[in-house]
Amino acid sequence: MTKRLYLNRIKVMERKSKQTKKVILTGDRPTGPLHLGHYIGSLKNRVKLQHEYDQYIIIADMQALTDNAEEPEKIQKNVLELGLDYLSIGIDPKVSTIFIQSLIPALAELTMYYLNLVTVARLERNPTVKDEMKQKGFGKSVPAGFFTYPISQVADITAFKANLVPVGADQVPMIEQTNEIVRAFNRIYKTNVLVAAQALISEVPRLSGTDGKAKMSKSLENCIYLSEPTDSLKKKVFSMYTDPGHIHVEQPGKIEGNVVFEYLDAFAPDKKKVQEMKNHYQKGGLGDTSVKEYLFEVLEQMLKPIREKRKGFAKDTVQVMKIIKEGTAKANEVAEQTLKEVKEAMGLVY
Amino acid sequence: MTKRLYLNRIKVMERKSKQTKKVILTGDRPTGPLHLGHYIGSLKNRVKLQHEYDQYIIIADMQALTDNAEEPEKIQKNVLELGLDYLSIGIDPKVSTIFIQSLIPALAELTMYYLNLVTVARLERNPTVKDEMKQKGFGKSVPAGFFTYPISQVADITAFKANLVPVGADQVPMIEQTNEIVRAFNRIYKTNVLVAAQALISEVPRLSGTDGKAKMSKSLENCIYLSEPTDSLKKKVFSMYTDPGHIHVEQPGKIEGNVVFEYLDAFAPDKKKVQEMKNHYQKGGLGDTSVKEYLFEVLEQMLKPIREKRKGFAKDTVQVMKIIKEGTAKANEVAEQTLKEVKEAMGLVY
Repeated sequence: MTKRLYLNRIKVMERKSKQTKKVILTGDRPTGPLHLGHYIGSLKNRVKLQHEYDQYIIIADMQALTDNAEEPEKIQKNVLELGLDYLSIGIDPKVSTIFIQSLIPALAELTMYYLNLVTVARLERNPTVKDEMKQKGFGKSVPAGFFTYPISQVADITAFKANLVPVGADQVPMIEQTNEIVRAFNRIYKTNVLVAAQALISEVPRLSGTDGKAKMSKSLENCIYLSEPTDSLKKKVFSMYTDPGHIHVEQPGKIEGNVVFEYLDAFAPDKKKVQEMKNHYQKGGLGDTSVKEYLFEVLEQMLKPIREKRKGFAKDTVQVMKIIKEGTAKANEVAEQTLKEVKEAMGLVY
Repeated sequence: MTKRLYLNRIKVMERKSKQTKKVILTGDRPTGPLHLGHYIGSLKNRVKLQHEYDQYIIIADMQALTDNAEEPEKIQKNVLELGLDYLSIGIDPKVSTIFIQSLIPALAELTMYYLNLVTVARLERNPTVKDEMKQKGFGKSVPAGFFTYPISQVADITAFKANLVPVGADQVPMIEQTNEIVRAFNRIYKTNVLVAAQALISEVPRLSGTDGKAKMSKSLENCIYLSEPTDSLKKKVFSMYTDPGHIHVEQPGKIEGNVVFEYLDAFAPDKKKVQEMKNHYQKGGLGDTSVKEYLFEVLEQMLKPIREKRKGFAKDTVQVMKIIKEGTAKANEVAEQTLKEVKEAMGLVY
């Protein structure tokens, strides 16, 4: 076989493997650095999934603007931070496509067409948005961009013909909304251009904040970041919420609601040791400080290589942005192709 | 002066004259052929305005889809028809820029950013949309694209930094909405990138349908089209609504609500003759048929050259589409430039 024939055969094989690989769309709003909650709930999985799937990772800067319109500089800055986080946990740009939402015009265009296929009443019924609106205290003063962002998400998902979208259980309505639009579009325009997506629901329970609160938030200062330096990691672990009734070492302590044990369950590789510590703690005789020391060890061991990799990448941010831009160029091609098919299906071709 | 210097000087002068010319944005939804109502209310004026202003004429196919999502082929077809109408009434593509909305991605992108600067409550208060929703019987089942189309219009207007937008009195709220977004954007992002627009309110009263109904509509078959053939023009004029009480020629007839006289007022160049006919009609002794014969003459004289010009252009629709595509390319450049400035103002630059 000549070299040329051989290379051609490889190309065909690559194309075939791409065709059979299912597509995943995942990503984050660039509103702040990623923390352990993101890691355990989603990021860790992405590193695994990128080898089984054709994985697109969206840096959703336009979506972040829907409730941060007054702080675009925060969003712009965090795009690079997200890129650094991704690369340092092991996202491989050779197999995963990292891209910036606002640099893909087709996503805005698709959103415009999809908005015609959903009623205002249907948007009002979206439980995820309803909850978020309540949390943010928006009421009727909700920005129209925020109110309609589920449709922008439909564009993100369908542009890449994603088969799977990893979500928390609270985000399943987003996938339902996506598939409603997919079905409506394919029915009205008598096509099968758009592909229905499936929710890949995270089995991992949501990680609490270090203060024991259910919600992690930057403003509450209750998150441990992937880029957390050793000293502040120590501080955060040692001020973690445990069992407020466990005052003396010899007293029995509670495990439920004890954030230190929750984190150990989530991150300690030695499950047996964690179980032994739990028994000891519940019986009495094991102090909070000892448990925290162990958790610090576990987290430091996990975060150290991430932190070091991050430092390496942070030295050459131009290169990081280049990687993101290359991913964006690839994503742009795919999204433009879908937009073309969408317009053709609608007969909007001039 | 060398030839080169001379040419450069001309270029500078051209640029200057462009800079000082104010920009107009106007256009139509491609949902059907244009009729006499459009002509008297807007089109006639465009032919005049194109020499005084830098005029952009949008063929708003995306906007047409907001309440015609199920009929994209109707919209696609009517884009060419609009182009033919424009050219045949004397829109000169050398001075006016005719373009297709869906081929300008920046319009969708700008819409996405502007949607974050307006609340749902504000959109609900838009009187124009409220009225249209009532007319169309939408209620809560209004498509989200229709509900938000005023913001898409803001993108259309601001993308070209239009200073003037010709509108009917009922559309003034659209300009108010535009300027609210312009002010919010410029304030939040500390810029003056976006330009406030002024409504150029049509002084011409709205033309009634041939049946005397206030609203002209294709489905009511009460419009006379710019492309109306002679025989059907005759039929339409001779079946026009006049004074139902005016049964015998010798009886006095009423002018108010008499569509034939309304059309004569709008289109007959000989105002004196129209006044004489009115006096005669009111006194009695002038039959409807005579008045209709005169109106037919007036309209035929006006529409004949338009019809003939249209026939000429219709022979080479490829050329017509080429003209529209060239306009679109120019419009795209301008809109992309504005989008660039908008993103820079927001700091969304990577």
